[in-house]
Amino acid sequence: MNHNIIELAQNLIRRPSVSPDDQGCQQVIAQRLEQLGFVIEWMPFNDTLNLWAKHGSGAPVVAFAGHTDVVPPGDESQWTYPPFEAKIVDDILYGRGAADMKGSLAAMVAAAEEYVKANPNHAGTIAFLITSDEEAAAKDGTVRVVETLMARGENIDFCMVGEPSSSNTLGDVVKNGRRGSITGNLYIEGIQGHVAYPHLAENPVHKALPFLQELTAYQWDKGNAFFPPTSLQIANIRAGTGSNNVIPGELYVQFNLRYCTEVTDELIKNTVAEMLKKHGLKYRINWDLSGKPFLTEVGKLVDAVVNGLESIVGIKPKLDTGGGTSDGRFIALMGAEVVELGPLNATIHKVNECVPVADLVALGAVYQRMLVNLLD
Amino acid sequence: MNHNIIELAQNLIRRPSVSPDDQGCQQVIAQRLEQLGFVIEWMPFNDTLNLWAKHGSGAPVVAFAGHTDVVPPGDESQWTYPPFEAKIVDDILYGRGAADMKGSLAAMVAAAEEYVKANPNHAGTIAFLITSDEEAAAKDGTVRVVETLMARGENIDFCMVGEPSSSNTLGDVVKNGRRGSITGNLYIEGIQGHVAYPHLAENPVHKALPFLQELTAYQWDKGNAFFPPTSLQIANIRAGTGSNNVIPGELYVQFNLRYCTEVTDELIKNTVAEMLKKHGLKYRINWDLSGKPFLTEVGKLVDAVVNGLESIVGIKPKLDTGGGTSDGRFIALMGAEVVELGPLNATIHKVNECVPVADLVALGAVYQRMLVNLLD
Repeated sequence: MNHNIIELAQNLIRRPSVSPDDQGCQQVIAQRLEQLGFVIEWMPFNDTLNLWAKHGSGAPVVAFAGHTDVVPPGDESQWTYPPFEAKIVDDILYGRGAADMKGSLAAMVAAAEEYVKANPNHAGTIAFLITSDEEAAAKDGTVRVVETLMARGENIDFCMVGEPSSSNTLGDVVKNGRRGSITGNLYIEGIQGHVAYPHLAENPVHKALPFLQELTAYQWDKGNAFFPPTSLQIANIRAGTGSNNVIPGELYVQFNLRYCTEVTDELIKNTVAEMLKKHGLKYRINWDLSGKPFLTEVGKLVDAVVNGLESIVGIKPKLDTGGGTSDGRFIALMGAEVVELGPLNATIHKVNECVPVADLVALGAVYQRMLVNLLD
Repeated sequence: MNHNIIELAQNLIRRPSVSPDDQGCQQVIAQRLEQLGFVIEWMPFNDTLNLWAKHGSGAPVVAFAGHTDVVPPGDESQWTYPPFEAKIVDDILYGRGAADMKGSLAAMVAAAEEYVKANPNHAGTIAFLITSDEEAAAKDGTVRVVETLMARGENIDFCMVGEPSSSNTLGDVVKNGRRGSITGNLYIEGIQGHVAYPHLAENPVHKALPFLQELTAYQWDKGNAFFPPTSLQIANIRAGTGSNNVIPGELYVQFNLRYCTEVTDELIKNTVAEMLKKHGLKYRINWDLSGKPFLTEVGKLVDAVVNGLESIVGIKPKLDTGGGTSDGRFIALMGAEVVELGPLNATIHKVNECVPVADLVALGAVYQRMLVNLLD
């Protein structure tokens, strides 16, 4: 399996698949799966390519999920080894996507290969849900595949998402949920005027300050056993014409909340509306809900993965829901148990992204043990 | 004089002299003054044309000051009569610069003509200080002429600036001073990061809010007998990359103060520095001092102008230092008494700028009476 994983990982890395351009990655994976007897279904939407592949039938449906796209490499001259060369030096594989997440894609494919070869008539269904846009707009990726599956009554029971979850050592962190993400685009209205005649104008920046203070200091909740507290951050703020003698007529504030299961998007919107009303502000606001929170409590899937890590890597992972978001939030909508286990995330989205070869090999073994635990 | 004023005003208005492009206005004025025996001196600096003209010699030096440049007309299709046609309808003269301030320039020239013709051997000196950039950058206009005069030991004792000072009726307001204007460009530093990892970042917007609250609520002074209270306005504010998932690394705030003689620019800078320190903010700041406040208390010049308005227009003006700023602040540096009297300012910088013909005629008479009161 070792050789298979690394060779496949390098093949994928050498394809400069910046979102949403798949560059033939899914074809390579599909060919490997087809040889095993997987049924391949392509689900392209606009510029995004998606793959849904299955082997076996009936419950439980165990899906591996991930993405072939990568973020841009940035300034290529800053890389020690070229980002799309997939060079291995001192047993470390370098390249854009090595950790996020072509390495784990290769490990998941290899794990499925090993398991299906050993168990051609296994129980249940093994599936792959792969997209070419997770990193960018992501409007035509996993979310569309999930919609399609749900519309035709197809189910996923357990899902392993190979996103790089590990922090300091492989497998020290397994994500069993993600916070929700919602963005508010707020326009606070004033009256434009000349700086020398403030009584004829209304400075929306001045007017908004008490509200913004309250908004940024507000404690939404204390988190819970599974989630850190809901957190709000102002990401963008803008007012003014550029002239130093004009009182602006409008203030734009964009803020984002990563929220836990103690609140809902409705509650967030209502709380902000009440705060704005209390401060007597004239405004327009529109909201963009990126995803609701999801949580997979300890159960079959978590046990299966923890057992794999303890046996093979010798580590008991921490279950965590912090950090950013992932496509797992869409798959959770199907009622699936969803966890994320992948390489160390220290180098992702940076120059000199890399992953130890040994980590990919270990991941392949853990993914395979997960299949054993769930299907045997 | 009437005919002279209006004809000259129309001549000037027809020249589209958007700062700093004089379009021959000063040449027209210079020719009229030369015929009276004025000595003409040109003082161009870079793109700006300036005129210094004198008749007579010795003290007191009574100067008329103003500008030939105008602000852009904006959307010309919004004008009822074209902005550079100088059309008169129902005894109202329409055009960009009619009120600000080609009408008063023409009135000042006509007043000097009448007075010099009647008093060719008058006491003292009558002067004109005219620039082609008051409305825009103004770095090479009146300020440079004043520097040049001071460097060679030339003085101005009394100065009439023809800026449009009137509010509801001609002569109801005479400006006998102007507030100072100083702009702070403040960069508050944080640490850029991912919205999902706020503990690894430092949001400068959040950090700055208490400081901004204090800054905008701060009462600098209560004003005094001559000036309204010092006032601060935030003119521009900006932070963020445009992405909704990035905590910005820096916040830019630009604020402007119009300040009175109760404070100084030094005090303002120190107060802001202390406030920033008290709030523990990491920052960079640079200041742009546009002009210090100036005040001309009741004395010879004010009396001369008030007498002219009472006798000719039948109005006792209010002395005022509010509103924007003017080139008078530079002339005040010479130790001159400076007042501003001109047409109604309701239409300046707007479409359909205009001035009643009768107002220009009255102004000419008042300017002439001022010369009589100061030199006879």
